[in-house]
Amino acid sequence: MATAFPLPPGATIGILGSGQLGRMLAIAAARLGFRVHVYDDASGPASDVAATQTVASFDDPVALAAFADAVDVVTYEFENVPVAAVGHITATGRIVRPGARALEVAQDRLVEKTFISGLGIPVAPFAAVDAATIAEAARIMTDWRGPAILKTRRFGYDGKGQISVGETAGLAAAWDELGKAAAVLEQRLLFACEVSVLVVRGADGVTACYDVPENEHGGGILRVSRVPSRLTREESREACELACRIAAALDYVGVLGVELFYMGSTAGSAARFLVNEIAPRVHNSGHWTMDACAIDQFENHIRAVAGWPLGSTARHSNVSMHNLIGAEVNAWPELAAEPGAILHIYGKRDARPGRKMGHVNRLSPR
Amino acid sequence: MATAFPLPPGATIGILGSGQLGRMLAIAAARLGFRVHVYDDASGPASDVAATQTVASFDDPVALAAFADAVDVVTYEFENVPVAAVGHITATGRIVRPGARALEVAQDRLVEKTFISGLGIPVAPFAAVDAATIAEAARIMTDWRGPAILKTRRFGYDGKGQISVGETAGLAAAWDELGKAAAVLEQRLLFACEVSVLVVRGADGVTACYDVPENEHGGGILRVSRVPSRLTREESREACELACRIAAALDYVGVLGVELFYMGSTAGSAARFLVNEIAPRVHNSGHWTMDACAIDQFENHIRAVAGWPLGSTARHSNVSMHNLIGAEVNAWPELAAEPGAILHIYGKRDARPGRKMGHVNRLSPR
Repeated sequence: MATAFPLPPGATIGILGSGQLGRMLAIAAARLGFRVHVYDDASGPASDVAATQTVASFDDPVALAAFADAVDVVTYEFENVPVAAVGHITATGRIVRPGARALEVAQDRLVEKTFISGLGIPVAPFAAVDAATIAEAARIMTDWRGPAILKTRRFGYDGKGQISVGETAGLAAAWDELGKAAAVLEQRLLFACEVSVLVVRGADGVTACYDVPENEHGGGILRVSRVPSRLTREESREACELACRIAAALDYVGVLGVELFYMGSTAGSAARFLVNEIAPRVHNSGHWTMDACAIDQFENHIRAVAGWPLGSTARHSNVSMHNLIGAEVNAWPELAAEPGAILHIYGKRDARPGRKMGHVNRLSPR
Repeated sequence: MATAFPLPPGATIGILGSGQLGRMLAIAAARLGFRVHVYDDASGPASDVAATQTVASFDDPVALAAFADAVDVVTYEFENVPVAAVGHITATGRIVRPGARALEVAQDRLVEKTFISGLGIPVAPFAAVDAATIAEAARIMTDWRGPAILKTRRFGYDGKGQISVGETAGLAAAWDELGKAAAVLEQRLLFACEVSVLVVRGADGVTACYDVPENEHGGGILRVSRVPSRLTREESREACELACRIAAALDYVGVLGVELFYMGSTAGSAARFLVNEIAPRVHNSGHWTMDACAIDQFENHIRAVAGWPLGSTARHSNVSMHNLIGAEVNAWPELAAEPGAILHIYGKRDARPGRKMGHVNRLSPR
């Protein structure tokens, strides 16, 4: 049964994955009057706010087809959804937004970097690493005359599957440490700061960007996003333009997170920004939009997926977003009492080290 | 099992009622990491965003006790919850916030007006109407020398159970039309505008008020709330002070809505405001807080119920809230495309006339 867009309130949005991003998407969908059906291989925090839940493997074509049949459109909340699962859903005629192409590109760092640089958008110098190419990668690293980072091509997130390589001589040992998984060696560059673009692209190809946050990482995990960033208006415009080009090239529908290194104002325009990676989903560095914008990234993702016009991305306040990682969430009594702190807790049961448990937004007047 | 307050994230908040107010309360609770269990005699829009649902009668002591046992604290989202149902819950040792006293007062217009005027707070002149008192009420109305409104003492909302009485001669017929239900006759006064106070009172007795909205009604139903109102700062302060006195006298915990008539700046201070009615719950005239404040009325109600410190009631934007009544919700495609309109749809299936289907908030800079 073909779906008519825009979806009316009362329609059901299917979400693959049930983590905190799915939870915040489900809440945004509910605000617009949609029902939400989550699908995951284990029950996660999104399940508590969804009308319906399927717990089944992403390799189960029967369960996926039944899910597709029960919903009006499908989206996903994490980039490691198997592409084949999306195929099982689209085979039923149900639309998945963003589609399989964005997953294919984002799931493999080598494909991703090749794709982005193929658009004429700068990325950090890189080399493929596998049994056949490691020698060539070592030669390339020697030319860089500096440190590098070795990253597995697949299934890395929050700093997992990454290892620093100080000198060419250490490459082989580093690769051993990654279990000789197919990898990418990236030149480690000095940059002025990390920023990201949250771009939303509608089903009609219209795009809109939120103001660009400046991000701080620690231990490979996002810790803080601040808006406004230190970028000039012209630099922000340039970063957004790069992100819009990537979204258009993927024929993307929904929110796309694009992480960039800002190389500093003295860098030539051609290399002022390097794209670090893309995330085909709502993004942690956009969680400040929940409290500083009239319409946040989660609602705009749902709007795009439902075939609605995009909502305003205007920002009414300055804001800093701090992640609550692991045991940091145990400070909730102090945070609850802090004037002006806006607390978001994801409802996860175990505050394991490195686990994103919540975040705090702090507003100030523009 | 006694509950330790403040409730930690992960605890379960029980909500009696599953309408749109319950839905928005459930979403606010989820943002803080709480689980939500709704109890209602039929499945309503809150059920789709709650982790657990009980469908059972409010007269079922076994189901109520099981519900009480499954949650850590109980609140309610409509004022016609039977007081006996709250009694069944508190008999298990589970705390209900706000408690039975606020229900008893708000469920009966005669008790309510007597209670409020007993605090020295002005209300419109009124008289009880039943078989024994109707003749006396007619004499009192003659003294008013003007029109009146006859309202049933119980179960009135959104203009239901009310009838205008132009002259004393029409009183008996009006009471017949209300089925000779116990009623209150109120003098109809000319007022400058209607305003309301959203006061939140914590378990520790601390109170905070949102900025006072100015309200427009049509057909007995709230249509529009605007903030800021036309009140001066001093007048707003006075309105809030009245609401805080009522909340304190009820030993109230949570958000209390207090509707007032503003009699105009030329009225003496003693009669500048009359209290029209109170609602022992989050209130439609506070829906603008969802988008114009860092922390909205729903989160502050949940904070109070959970024994947390109150959150800031500060407002970052000017705002107007328009209700979508009945078929007005069918304008969702235009509203979705309106720049700056923030749409909230409650997920009700039938857009019956007079039914509150959603609301729109429109922000402007302060």
